[in-house]
Amino acid sequence: MDYRFTPEAEALKPSAIREILKLSFAPGVIPFSAGNPAPEAFPAEAVAGITAQILEKTPIAALQYSVTEGFEPLREELLVRAKAKALANERDRILITAGAQQVMSLASAALAGRGDTILCENPSFVGAINAFKLTGARVVGVDMEEDGLNLNKLEDALRREENVKLLYVIPNFQNPTGITTSEEKRRALYRLARQYDFLIIEDDPYGELYFQGAPPCPIKSLDTDGRVIYAGSFSKVLSPGLRVGWCIADEALIAKFTALKQTQDVHTNIMAQMIAHRFLTAYPFEEHLTFLRKLYARKAALCLGEAERHLAPEITFTRPAGGLFAWCALPEGYDDFPLRALREKQVAVVPGGAFRVQPAEPERCFRINFSTPTDEQIVRGMERLGELKRVMARGR
Amino acid sequence: MDYRFTPEAEALKPSAIREILKLSFAPGVIPFSAGNPAPEAFPAEAVAGITAQILEKTPIAALQYSVTEGFEPLREELLVRAKAKALANERDRILITAGAQQVMSLASAALAGRGDTILCENPSFVGAINAFKLTGARVVGVDMEEDGLNLNKLEDALRREENVKLLYVIPNFQNPTGITTSEEKRRALYRLARQYDFLIIEDDPYGELYFQGAPPCPIKSLDTDGRVIYAGSFSKVLSPGLRVGWCIADEALIAKFTALKQTQDVHTNIMAQMIAHRFLTAYPFEEHLTFLRKLYARKAALCLGEAERHLAPEITFTRPAGGLFAWCALPEGYDDFPLRALREKQVAVVPGGAFRVQPAEPERCFRINFSTPTDEQIVRGMERLGELKRVMARGR
Repeated sequence: MDYRFTPEAEALKPSAIREILKLSFAPGVIPFSAGNPAPEAFPAEAVAGITAQILEKTPIAALQYSVTEGFEPLREELLVRAKAKALANERDRILITAGAQQVMSLASAALAGRGDTILCENPSFVGAINAFKLTGARVVGVDMEEDGLNLNKLEDALRREENVKLLYVIPNFQNPTGITTSEEKRRALYRLARQYDFLIIEDDPYGELYFQGAPPCPIKSLDTDGRVIYAGSFSKVLSPGLRVGWCIADEALIAKFTALKQTQDVHTNIMAQMIAHRFLTAYPFEEHLTFLRKLYARKAALCLGEAERHLAPEITFTRPAGGLFAWCALPEGYDDFPLRALREKQVAVVPGGAFRVQPAEPERCFRINFSTPTDEQIVRGMERLGELKRVMARGR
Repeated sequence: MDYRFTPEAEALKPSAIREILKLSFAPGVIPFSAGNPAPEAFPAEAVAGITAQILEKTPIAALQYSVTEGFEPLREELLVRAKAKALANERDRILITAGAQQVMSLASAALAGRGDTILCENPSFVGAINAFKLTGARVVGVDMEEDGLNLNKLEDALRREENVKLLYVIPNFQNPTGITTSEEKRRALYRLARQYDFLIIEDDPYGELYFQGAPPCPIKSLDTDGRVIYAGSFSKVLSPGLRVGWCIADEALIAKFTALKQTQDVHTNIMAQMIAHRFLTAYPFEEHLTFLRKLYARKAALCLGEAERHLAPEITFTRPAGGLFAWCALPEGYDDFPLRALREKQVAVVPGGAFRVQPAEPERCFRINFSTPTDEQIVRGMERLGELKRVMARGR
């Protein structure tokens, strides 16, 4: 039969990335397309040990219903750590979510609807964009520069668009560009939020994965009047499969998000929350972070070095200071490079269009991820992309 | 600051049950108010064994990102089982969700919005009602009889209400009433769905927990044109804390729900899905179900026997043929019985108002759960409720 979906649901397309992801894991394909932690990044033995302990000592608590707010000891631990970083003030509370993705869903559903506008970076994380579109709000991308959003274009949008309720940013090692927003721009964003009266969603899944020094202060740390909703995640520092993230925001926001979360999933898998809590408190978490930072710094250096050899100078790319991604720009005439890379060279990258609110014409960018492929795959993959570049150069 | 929530989010109140639940677990309070599986119902050792195996043999798969649709072997196993019960036809697919709650959220968000109507049983499960209200649709409760919805009132509502898109029912051992919808009425509901062109959400978390014979055929088994969305759950047969449920529906619906689920949580905790899969396939699942049926049948018989001794005849109650709940009706003049039970007798039951779409005036019902309290608590709790009843009778 013909189903009549709501206009918002009708317009929603499955994430192109997740569809490409399915292809990327076909045998023989080199996966620069994923956003997965490296296989060697998982503290698998620690998780096995922790889980065995939990199921031996408190099996019923780990399997029974729990409260929507989240596992109390985990919330307390995260709040202590947040306060130590000035990431939470006295009115702020924590809600544990099913990954940071759920923060985008809850915050946008609570605060924006038809007739409202949500601004985001262009390009941006497609999972967030889709959550925003589903609210019925108009979603508008604002172009990026090397140090974050183009502030002139942002102010243009703020003057032009109606009922701007939210600005969504990933200030650290952004997905997909790898760009870090400068401290100056972070302060400017918060100033603009006060001036134009909107809230900021600060999505920070990669902040701990810096290669050299820590990134500038979180926008949330500037927040004195409850305008910033901070989303954290265990996905990149422990495990994405466990689906544990968290939200730090004013208690009135957290109360509303909690009521909304009840309608989505009642509460986050409690065993996973207990695992995250033990991992934070009973294991050398800082050592694990240091290990991850070194691992990804090494893989990024390898990948960007090979890109320099094989892709430059025609294909340019960002040099991220952390995280999992770099963003590549193609010269004119190479528009179908990503598609041909997959078909002819068995190398999967994500075409830039997957990260646009509105299509860019022409689309000449693509995202590469350096955490998922092995070192050998990185070397071989960049070689093959270089071959394709040369073939395409000759064909012009 | 003053936050401006969307009208739907503004209207959403935290679930009264979950708030009462928090009180119920205060020391000394007898919890007839929960909906939790009995502590002895958890196959804790099996889960510990399964989990250790998974984390030993396939740790990365259990911790890495996975696909939104769900763990493929689990989906296949559930589909085979569904087909064996005529619960799925050739066009039907399965989506794994974060508990059955997420099915309500996804299905209603995809199919209903402002200007639409969702019908449900009155009283009904508050988590579903809240998910429905959040879509902006008008939610209308239709009164129940001993064998399910009052069909005359349902037809009245279908003629009266505009754009009825969905009917939500819990045909087996309904929450909160314990009522089982008769086979005749199941067929009538499906006929009406075709006649008035709406879809049915069949929520079936308790169907396996029958005390004597299996309940009548699921409405989904009558479905020839893709009108029935079936929600299943591991919450009552394995563990609610793991948050694993599933949806069986036409492939076009499943595709849309999958796209929506991406925006809520990307995918369901993959380790929990693997645990559920192993529990279904490598353990004697049927024996576990037999054990649970006996356990709950015994607890129900104990509870209703004590209710007969202490609450009858003034307070009447349903006699469920399965599940976790019975529904009690108070005579005139006892309206504050649930509140006084908690305050004066330390016995927590859930006032009927928690299950209403619109308040019933006067509200003279309450729900009792017989799975959470121990046998001793059931005996003591009913005694105390009987004392309160006698005190209130004297006071009239």
